[in-house]
Amino acid sequence: MIVVIKDEATPQELQAIEQLMAGSESPHYTRLDGSLILSNERPLQQDTALRLLEFASVERVLKADKAYRLVSREFRPAGTIIRVGDAVFGGDEAVAIAGPCSVESEDQILRIAAEVKEGGAKVLRGGAFKPRTSPYAFQGLGERGLELLAKAREASGLPIVTEVLDAADLPLVASYADILQVGSRNMKNYKLLKAVAASNKPILLKRGMASHLEELLLSAEYIMAGGNGDIILCERGVRTFTDYARNTLDLNIVPTIKKATHLPIIVDPSHGTGIRDLVAPMSMAAIACGADGLMIEVHTEPDRSWSDAAQAISPENFADIMHKVRSLSAWRTAHEALSLTPEG
Amino acid sequence: MIVVIKDEATPQELQAIEQLMAGSESPHYTRLDGSLILSNERPLQQDTALRLLEFASVERVLKADKAYRLVSREFRPAGTIIRVGDAVFGGDEAVAIAGPCSVESEDQILRIAAEVKEGGAKVLRGGAFKPRTSPYAFQGLGERGLELLAKAREASGLPIVTEVLDAADLPLVASYADILQVGSRNMKNYKLLKAVAASNKPILLKRGMASHLEELLLSAEYIMAGGNGDIILCERGVRTFTDYARNTLDLNIVPTIKKATHLPIIVDPSHGTGIRDLVAPMSMAAIACGADGLMIEVHTEPDRSWSDAAQAISPENFADIMHKVRSLSAWRTAHEALSLTPEG
Amino acid sequence: MIVVIKDEATPQELQAIEQLMAGSESPHYTRLDGSLILSNERPLQQDTALRLLEFASVERVLKADKAYRLVSREFRPAGTIIRVGDAVFGGDEAVAIAGPCSVESEDQILRIAAEVKEGGAKVLRGGAFKPRTSPYAFQGLGERGLELLAKAREASGLPIVTEVLDAADLPLVASYADILQVGSRNMKNYKLLKAVAASNKPILLKRGMASHLEELLLSAEYIMAGGNGDIILCERGVRTFTDYARNTLDLNIVPTIKKATHLPIIVDPSHGTGIRDLVAPMSMAAIACGADGLMIEVHTEPDRSWSDAAQAISPENFADIMHKVRSLSAWRTAHEALSLTPEG
Amino acid sequence: MIVVIKDEATPQELQAIEQLMAGSESPHYTRLDGSLILSNERPLQQDTALRLLEFASVERVLKADKAYRLVSREFRPAGTIIRVGDAVFGGDEAVAIAGPCSVESEDQILRIAAEVKEGGAKVLRGGAFKPRTSPYAFQGLGERGLELLAKAREASGLPIVTEVLDAADLPLVASYADILQVGSRNMKNYKLLKAVAASNKPILLKRGMASHLEELLLSAEYIMAGGNGDIILCERGVRTFTDYARNTLDLNIVPTIKKATHLPIIVDPSHGTGIRDLVAPMSMAAIACGADGLMIEVHTEPDRSWSDAAQAISPENFADIMHKVRSLSAWRTAHEALSLTPEG
Repeated sequence: MIVVIKDEATPQELQAIEQLMAGSESPHYTRLDGSLILSNERPLQQDTALRLLEFASVERVLKADKAYRLVSREFRPAGTIIRVGDAVFGGDEAVAIAGPCSVESEDQILRIAAEVKEGGAKVLRGGAFKPRTSPYAFQGLGERGLELLAKAREASGLPIVTEVLDAADLPLVASYADILQVGSRNMKNYKLLKAVAASNKPILLKRGMASHLEELLLSAEYIMAGGNGDIILCERGVRTFTDYARNTLDLNIVPTIKKATHLPIIVDPSHGTGIRDLVAPMSMAAIACGADGLMIEVHTEPDRSWSDAAQAISPENFADIMHKVRSLSAWRTAHEALSLTPEG
Repeated sequence: MIVVIKDEATPQELQAIEQLMAGSESPHYTRLDGSLILSNERPLQQDTALRLLEFASVERVLKADKAYRLVSREFRPAGTIIRVGDAVFGGDEAVAIAGPCSVESEDQILRIAAEVKEGGAKVLRGGAFKPRTSPYAFQGLGERGLELLAKAREASGLPIVTEVLDAADLPLVASYADILQVGSRNMKNYKLLKAVAASNKPILLKRGMASHLEELLLSAEYIMAGGNGDIILCERGVRTFTDYARNTLDLNIVPTIKKATHLPIIVDPSHGTGIRDLVAPMSMAAIACGADGLMIEVHTEPDRSWSDAAQAISPENFADIMHKVRSLSAWRTAHEALSLTPEG
Repeated sequence: MIVVIKDEATPQELQAIEQLMAGSESPHYTRLDGSLILSNERPLQQDTALRLLEFASVERVLKADKAYRLVSREFRPAGTIIRVGDAVFGGDEAVAIAGPCSVESEDQILRIAAEVKEGGAKVLRGGAFKPRTSPYAFQGLGERGLELLAKAREASGLPIVTEVLDAADLPLVASYADILQVGSRNMKNYKLLKAVAASNKPILLKRGMASHLEELLLSAEYIMAGGNGDIILCERGVRTFTDYARNTLDLNIVPTIKKATHLPIIVDPSHGTGIRDLVAPMSMAAIACGADGLMIEVHTEPDRSWSDAAQAISPENFADIMHKVRSLSAWRTAHEALSLTPEG
Repeated sequence: MIVVIKDEATPQELQAIEQLMAGSESPHYTRLDGSLILSNERPLQQDTALRLLEFASVERVLKADKAYRLVSREFRPAGTIIRVGDAVFGGDEAVAIAGPCSVESEDQILRIAAEVKEGGAKVLRGGAFKPRTSPYAFQGLGERGLELLAKAREASGLPIVTEVLDAADLPLVASYADILQVGSRNMKNYKLLKAVAASNKPILLKRGMASHLEELLLSAEYIMAGGNGDIILCERGVRTFTDYARNTLDLNIVPTIKKATHLPIIVDPSHGTGIRDLVAPMSMAAIACGADGLMIEVHTEPDRSWSDAAQAISPENFADIMHKVRSLSAWRTAHEALSLTPEG
């Protein structure tokens, strides 16, 4: 169950509330948006609910009968909206994050930033610390990459998202980034999840390569239980037996997540396919089934990209995709195509 | 290489052509649409092409350097269009096949046929011979089911598609069906593929649960190499580690198939998700990324469906989906959203 | 529940027994080894059991509370033993089936038969009807291949196992084969399963590429419910994301099947790895965890095998493997390494 | 290529060697066992090899034409042997690590340590920092758990292995542990891999849930390129579509790794199956195909284990397994069952 408490509750009240909650362990305490939230694993019974609501300091009580609690849609039925610069994640309009896989040079990132802004991106992406399979591969420009991203932000006006690989890097990365990315490989790096929970930045949490839905939601729960509810989920393809694409983009998860949680979800068709020509059609598919946005790798010379060249698209192609995305996003709103009402 | 030959070629000419083709084995002979097609595994060299084209009876020569030949887009660059009743597979407009998982009774199939026609379906589906995991589960009404489908066709005017499980059943099933379905479990039943190749009915070929792209295309090649080029492919979800859906709908394959082959491809969001509430959003996703149509399980009493109840939707829900599908299909055409032009 | 009945039961008795069983549908009737077996989906209650056992014609009643019934270990606690020639499947000693992927010529099959017999094989394998992914690939010698297998049997004294692809081919294949193989691609070809159930030959049933345990057991149940209880299961690798082998050999299933069913299970390390050098170590692993035998592709000129060349091993290598297998099999017996007693 | 250099090389010599190596980037420098190792991505040509060997300071030059270099068997053809207390990883005899999933209390860990030592374990395992899917699950006793492990080491004489979750925790964990475990979830946590590379402890590196072979070897390469060559690999099951076990134990990888690398590999049948009754047979399978050892979860009250209860076994069961493992290990040596000689 979840009990939402106003800050003015006295220690005595809290103790009495804890007793009513009566789980096998003490409830978990989370401070979120000026409230105090107590939760435990017990599903809420009606009589307990009534008694809890008698406390003046108790604002709301919730059943929360799943493994994840705070990220469940029940907790915020209207959905979470996250604003970063001009980008609105979780609203009617689909929003795009775009940019290169890696920051390579000042010239590169400034040009791409200008191009993707022109094309319709609302956030600039770019890797400074890169998790690379080989120790001998380019590992990113590090802090220099962050500085270049900051310059690109200044020049373009776009907020920036970049990956943080390790709790120890967090202060540095957070001093530059507007959104902190936790990558696929780190979806189960719980130390990192706890660290970003303590930051005051929105988090872009990418699904792991073989992650169950529940595991993804519990990773988000780590962040929210730590006091940070500004989480954007991202589907980026899962690893299967496929012979023709880098990954299998699992779009089934988009409407499933919209129903299960209040968090926005975007789709990364670049990693989700690994193939340039599939980025456009899979962007349309993602928007059509309800994604709140896209994350797309764009490079002014796609074939010369220092990493993930096969999936990078040109700024022209990106602009063309965004033109269609805006139109499809409007169609979606006009047709209430994403109404969540289930069948009786 | 592929050599397309007019029927008036003499045996001497054929012999000379075979010699020029010069593979390690005799070329494969296929009769298709009034032409004779010779093909073998050797990629075509330019000088061989020029010499082959000197024969008056040779219409076309093609490189065909993949494992599959006749189903490659190269063979019919404009794409294959298959017309069955009012349904057009492979045209601009997305088309829907709908109906119950199994034919259960005359009343059931007549009512559903009327409802799905009203909702916008162009073809009626219904299983008479059902491949069931358990020997003790309902195995379909058999020939009686085929008779009821024929009645529903008469009453509704909708052509019917139904599954054929075995080469021995083919004459019976083909005497009723307008389209013959080869199901997922039989995608690699090569005896059955050869049998349906010899029928003159369009074939709906569903992808196997763990089928590679190339395997699906080679199964289609079995049918086309046997003289039947009217093949509709169908993505219906693949088996992965997923914890929240029956299957993982692999929409990446839709634009991939449109590029690799000339055959139409439809999507089955009912089996591809296994969950009623996901049918609508995944229908939209399928159309948005270029599917030529949909195959949807509809039941007047979804929860009482004798098979696959969890994924069946009501006629009202189906009509609502079709309303959006028509609109999205028109949007797709208006925006040339599926233009196949790859990036330079 | 399962009710085993002596043949002398009267129609009146059967009717009374059916009434006591009282499922929503009539029980399934199977004739097996001179008994009549009635079964339905209801778990058996104790009072029903007592009343059923009052009938003189009722031999045994069983709970059978799983989706599969007759193949469950409960039905034959001592396990099923299948004897074909000198081969004993399900006994203490591990037994080997060996031979080429395809029968290629009289000389080839006679030589390999002699070699594998010498090396310790008890059954000769060889494909006459081959399920090939491409319609243009060698499809097997057909009936001529069966004749050559028969010659090899005569010359070597080894019984033969070969694949049947289709119910229509069954009479022909069964007139030659000592064991009928149902291949991976046909594990869910229920028409074929029903057909082989009606034959009086032992069946080698290979697990499908993406088959769940329960699906494999229900496919075996099709055969046993059709009156044929002589079924040898075969693990041959499943399709996963692996980057280094053709398939992932799922040995976890071996002890699981020994516990869940009374049927013998063998392992095919040739298809299960697709790599020659892995055949020996994975043969040892299979025996060590309880497999009743092995099925190995052997060719006198492995690299020239007409199909599956990468996984074929030489007769010398096979003999070396068998030497170790016999020793490991004896070790296994001496150490009661496979005792099924679970922990309290 | 790899160039192994004695420490007395002068800067001028190094410069000349670098020039001969002539890759597009500077070679990677690794200090290992008193030598300096230069490596880059270029395969070695014979003339370059001859010229490199003319330098007195050059000890060895190697082709190293794979993505991984230092971990390739070519680098240490005889194989790596790692000694920790009485445990020898990579020798003839299979060695066992055993203990509880989590350290729960002093009494628990002392009792289990005594029992598993008695049963034949050579290393004690126990989690102090636990990576748990839910933020609300028991996260381990932390430093208190490390202290209890140290007590158990003192009492039992067994060296201890425990997981390190984060680079920041490394100094603390390394001050207690004899072997540092990098868990499945962290196989691609490259920051952590670089950190443990700089420690002087042996590393137990567990394969990720959806890890390719090459990815596992490149993760090991991160550690070795960082100067630590004492790496024990561990197969612990991969995530597939399986319906009957927690994971699919991929034993194909054992002989593959023995051939590809010089590193020892052990198998974790507890996580690899998730089912108590499968631990014994899969332990035998692992040893039979060449594993250098096992890692097994043992608990004095398996069903009361605070984590992973379903897969924990009792000390009695463990002792019984070890009795068989020793015997099978001896059989393996006696029969040269793991000879790596490939077929011509």
